[in-house]
Amino acid sequence: MNHVLAASQFDTNGLAILFAEADKMQAAAATPTGSRLLTGKHQGHVMATLFYEPSTRTRLSFESAAQRLGLGLISTENAREFSSAAKGETLEDSIRVIDGYADVIVLRHHETGAASRAAAVSRVPIINAGDGKGEHPTQALLDVYTVLKELSRLDNLTIVAGGDLAHGRTVRSFVQLMSLYAGNKFCFVSTPELKIGDDIKSFLKQKRIEFRETDNLLDGCQEADVIYWTRLQKERLENKTLASNFVIDKAVMKTLPKRAIIMHPLPRVGEIAAAVDRDPRAAYFRQAENGLYMRMVLIDQILSNKSLTR
Amino acid sequence: MNHVLAASQFDTNGLAILFAEADKMQAAAATPTGSRLLTGKHQGHVMATLFYEPSTRTRLSFESAAQRLGLGLISTENAREFSSAAKGETLEDSIRVIDGYADVIVLRHHETGAASRAAAVSRVPIINAGDGKGEHPTQALLDVYTVLKELSRLDNLTIVAGGDLAHGRTVRSFVQLMSLYAGNKFCFVSTPELKIGDDIKSFLKQKRIEFRETDNLLDGCQEADVIYWTRLQKERLENKTLASNFVIDKAVMKTLPKRAIIMHPLPRVGEIAAAVDRDPRAAYFRQAENGLYMRMVLIDQILSNKSLTR
Amino acid sequence: MNHVLAASQFDTNGLAILFAEADKMQAAAATPTGSRLLTGKHQGHVMATLFYEPSTRTRLSFESAAQRLGLGLISTENAREFSSAAKGETLEDSIRVIDGYADVIVLRHHETGAASRAAAVSRVPIINAGDGKGEHPTQALLDVYTVLKELSRLDNLTIVAGGDLAHGRTVRSFVQLMSLYAGNKFCFVSTPELKIGDDIKSFLKQKRIEFRETDNLLDGCQEADVIYWTRLQKERLENKTLASNFVIDKAVMKTLPKRAIIMHPLPRVGEIAAAVDRDPRAAYFRQAENGLYMRMVLIDQILSNKSLTR
Repeated sequence: MNHVLAASQFDTNGLAILFAEADKMQAAAATPTGSRLLTGKHQGHVMATLFYEPSTRTRLSFESAAQRLGLGLISTENAREFSSAAKGETLEDSIRVIDGYADVIVLRHHETGAASRAAAVSRVPIINAGDGKGEHPTQALLDVYTVLKELSRLDNLTIVAGGDLAHGRTVRSFVQLMSLYAGNKFCFVSTPELKIGDDIKSFLKQKRIEFRETDNLLDGCQEADVIYWTRLQKERLENKTLASNFVIDKAVMKTLPKRAIIMHPLPRVGEIAAAVDRDPRAAYFRQAENGLYMRMVLIDQILSNKSLTR
Repeated sequence: MNHVLAASQFDTNGLAILFAEADKMQAAAATPTGSRLLTGKHQGHVMATLFYEPSTRTRLSFESAAQRLGLGLISTENAREFSSAAKGETLEDSIRVIDGYADVIVLRHHETGAASRAAAVSRVPIINAGDGKGEHPTQALLDVYTVLKELSRLDNLTIVAGGDLAHGRTVRSFVQLMSLYAGNKFCFVSTPELKIGDDIKSFLKQKRIEFRETDNLLDGCQEADVIYWTRLQKERLENKTLASNFVIDKAVMKTLPKRAIIMHPLPRVGEIAAAVDRDPRAAYFRQAENGLYMRMVLIDQILSNKSLTR
Repeated sequence: MNHVLAASQFDTNGLAILFAEADKMQAAAATPTGSRLLTGKHQGHVMATLFYEPSTRTRLSFESAAQRLGLGLISTENAREFSSAAKGETLEDSIRVIDGYADVIVLRHHETGAASRAAAVSRVPIINAGDGKGEHPTQALLDVYTVLKELSRLDNLTIVAGGDLAHGRTVRSFVQLMSLYAGNKFCFVSTPELKIGDDIKSFLKQKRIEFRETDNLLDGCQEADVIYWTRLQKERLENKTLASNFVIDKAVMKTLPKRAIIMHPLPRVGEIAAAVDRDPRAAYFRQAENGLYMRMVLIDQILSNKSLTR
């Protein structure tokens, strides 16, 4: 079955198809007639968004995508607190009930591996919308798609990832997918305590992919094509010196390459100054919108029984 | 008006029509073309799910049903906490406002009799999705429909109901509806403190319907055609001896008749072992799915102004 | 862009068009065929209801309106607690993400001025569904529309507003809009501590509009064409003497003019007795329903790019 469980399930051929479809989806959605036609595609199908922890942004993105394709929608944002889960029902049992109501299930869960557990029992496709410290594959797909749209290529790029690299699951998946393409180099900007995991470094070494680490934002970003910035946890922000070293503001922007793009999975809380928003290199709101088209494509491919995985 | 308030409002003729319609609904929904056609049935209508206490499973089942028939949906799962109710508005006033927005209202409420109070003032049909210790008629309908689908008849059955029979409103309604059919016998498996209510026993005696009571699962189920199992309350589960006496596991399954079906309103919390799920007699997930078709039929009949009640 | 931010943005010409459209909308929605045709109007569009504080009634009214026009819907009722806002995201950032998913955003916020802040950054139209002590323009529109439907005119009316006039934003907007029409007079019924704001009185004086104040319900309402009653806050209700002086019951109704209508933004908590509901002058439930048609019109006009503002 066509589950979307992990970024690692995609190869460059599969990605190329998804990105081409996403371009078409955006073009169709850009006109009233196209939008109207899209709603005829999957009428009669229903998607469930089953969120065991709230993630309003991700949920709304999936729900807009589904409805633009004509699907009906059943939704719960606090499955953990409200539903039968509170009475002690297992995730597996919940999935086996919901798969009788819906044709595809988007699952967000606080436990690593939950999406795979759901897929093991589900009669309908599961899309992982984030499971604990594990995976968030649709974020990774939209991130890579954004690079392609902004820079028109995915190879031979210098990619800088900064902020809290120790806890951010989005950076990890992004690095993994970008390493599928030839000639990409990575620079990780972080403090010692927020460094990227050793597993990622081993992964890069094994694939003989060039990378370096620095705690200096200005040093790290000088040759960047892509700057992928992430939010520091609240407790880190209280360390003002630390936090201020990781703020991209107008002064920093002046030192950056002219064609580098700034990406961020959002929400941000100050690590990119609002004044940067008007800079054409600020790609993060376009990145968020790309999530809509990417999710439309995934839902469309899944319900059309087109293979997603290698 | 076509309210659905209580299991007792249905007679065998009315049930036969609903069950025949549910079969057709499932057949139509099983193909993409059929699903698509169904969404054209009630376009332009809106259903409200007004839940004063959360019941995610029931809500999602109704909401999937409505959307598969083309209805729009307005929904609130914690009307009690959030809405005007918190400011002191009566249920009656809330209904009188919502009935201006929706063409049918699905009501879940913590107070017994709430559905009837709503029906007394509403300008649109009310479907009772559970009111306190009172009624949950759509659950009763799907339960009886499940017996028919699984066993191809509704009469001359030995029906075993077990677990917490004192507090479970689903068992009570199920017994009442099954007693409409000739030749059915009942066996109630429970501890003295969780016995089925005297009112149900009086009801059965008055109708001269055979029943017996036992606290022994193995004894009770030997001649069962239908085993309707229910969840023990959390506080009961702490009594391990008590709880373990009411677990249906693979060993128990070996002693049960070959064609007996196991039903459960779900969620379960251990009183049926997960290993039982793969046994073809385990009907509880099919039972949950039947709820979708039964609710589609009720919404369809109501909006088509077809009489539901005797 | 066609934002709906404040009651003051409308003039009598614009209002006349909206009210005529609302009549048509109600007529179309009154038949199955008309309802079905309406759902074809804006298919392919998606509305977001972004509520930073719950207001179930207002949310459901907008969501029913949108779906009756064929829109898809993405919705959150506790954006403040759940979403990225809890992680420190600004309203502006949230809007910039949501405007990539939706074609129109209905915003409810606890801070005065939030709707204007949202409109300043949004790429799609914003409809203000209440922002703090500020504005709630769609309520004001439906209130004025109700007067027109009930009394067939908007001028030369004696309008009595009573209850908590100090804190009720709906009364303030209603008075402002009704003062656009010639010959209207106002009477404010309240206690000294709950009097209408000096700004409203200055506004009326400047426009040379007649008004008076009283703390006596019976005195105030004797010549009323319109009685706009509002809820006392809970803490006021504990003052039983105070509260009982502001209850419209059957006895009070006997003293009122035969053609006066009773309006209320709802919810009520006793300041209009339930026994009054059956009196044909009780217009408050019809008023609530008018909100549906008014919101359908606003969504329709906005998505059709028809100008709303002077």
